[in-house]
Amino acid sequence: MPKFDDDTDRKVSIILSKGTLDWATASMVIANAAVSEGIELHLFFTFYGLDAVLKKKMDHLKVTPLANPSMGMPNAIAAIPGVTAMATSMMKKMMKKENVPDHRDFIQMVCDAGGHLHVCRLTFDMFGYTKDDLYEEVEDVISASDFLDVAEGGQIIFI
Amino acid sequence: MPKFDDDTDRKVSIILSKGTLDWATASMVIANAAVSEGIELHLFFTFYGLDAVLKKKMDHLKVTPLANPSMGMPNAIAAIPGVTAMATSMMKKMMKKENVPDHRDFIQMVCDAGGHLHVCRLTFDMFGYTKDDLYEEVEDVISASDFLDVAEGGQIIFI
Amino acid sequence: MPKFDDDTDRKVSIILSKGTLDWATASMVIANAAVSEGIELHLFFTFYGLDAVLKKKMDHLKVTPLANPSMGMPNAIAAIPGVTAMATSMMKKMMKKENVPDHRDFIQMVCDAGGHLHVCRLTFDMFGYTKDDLYEEVEDVISASDFLDVAEGGQIIFI
Repeated sequence: MPKFDDDTDRKVSIILSKGTLDWATASMVIANAAVSEGIELHLFFTFYGLDAVLKKKMDHLKVTPLANPSMGMPNAIAAIPGVTAMATSMMKKMMKKENVPDHRDFIQMVCDAGGHLHVCRLTFDMFGYTKDDLYEEVEDVISASDFLDVAEGGQIIFI
Repeated sequence: MPKFDDDTDRKVSIILSKGTLDWATASMVIANAAVSEGIELHLFFTFYGLDAVLKKKMDHLKVTPLANPSMGMPNAIAAIPGVTAMATSMMKKMMKKENVPDHRDFIQMVCDAGGHLHVCRLTFDMFGYTKDDLYEEVEDVISASDFLDVAEGGQIIFI
Repeated sequence: MPKFDDDTDRKVSIILSKGTLDWATASMVIANAAVSEGIELHLFFTFYGLDAVLKKKMDHLKVTPLANPSMGMPNAIAAIPGVTAMATSMMKKMMKKENVPDHRDFIQMVCDAGGHLHVCRLTFDMFGYTKDDLYEEVEDVISASDFLDVAEGGQIIFI
């Protein structure tokens, strides 16, 4: 396990466990804010969150209004085929209007500013992925123990 | 960005990202416990969580048994119109029995005891809200960077 | 409230608020990693998460692909009766292949290695449970304030 030593006096680690556009974006917003402030920043992609760094999936993250009463759509309608695609398209438009980058550009911004990307070994092995499946900026595939080492002394945000 | 200096030796910051009654209540339970113990307490409302401080929505937060096998209701039934309203009504009764205040009263309690409410600027702008849409006790609309400043040196709980 | 003093120089507290197999497993993976590293570890079971330490439910935790676009199944299909059981069975097979223990064995491993289990009093009272309903290794039923005391000085992970 390489030691990270970003010469900062603060560290934030984000665990992204969800594979949808809303939570991937929430992670990137916080991650980007952290690196912009000179905070050492680690992202650990686990469970469904791995989608956010899979070459084949990261450009196609979706969002669904189902089981989310906050979106104001009845579940019986939200379950209809096509509604997920529609909600995803709407969210992308709203984010574009606020100059939020596409997910791939956003994660690249975070990496360019010094953020570190780690993938959870258990999830990686469970789904039988290979390193070729992963976004190029991913630094390593590590265990939960390794992640706890990485996150030591900082704040942890589980999304 | 105003500096918070609550003269306490401990700080907890809660990010509420969900807009449903269960998670809004979970936030208030932890927030209330924190302020009661003299801990500096910050709530940051982002994404769907903004609903919890919107004048028009905060009294009508809902809960759905859909996609939550823990509630014991088959999804095919949970999706039927009216079930969300029924589940919400049931949860409110259960909370009332345990003397859990209504959401608006609960958040007011937290504020009266010194808790600080912040709204996420990106979400606020994305949905085109104005300050008049926000619950009076909200102190400011701040960026994720500002939130990281506010939360520095404390524990962060992302709900 | 008993004081915990595990003679370690690091502490991690996990709040498990979800009652599904995926998030219960995520909690145990992190918890197990923590105790294996000699970190003082606390698990606080609240809201739906209580299911993970209920004798009658802990062996029957489920997972649903509904409202989780990351699982790649259309919501209209995911809502069909039987799909939750099928998805649960699939996840169990994938975890078995990676030598992830069954939930009950996993939580026992964490306890055997010194992890502490706490149940949220509000949830416990709200559902009218008795101590006999709880998994034997649960140490106490405590308030959110007590939990904040327990978690003081460590990292908090809300799942």
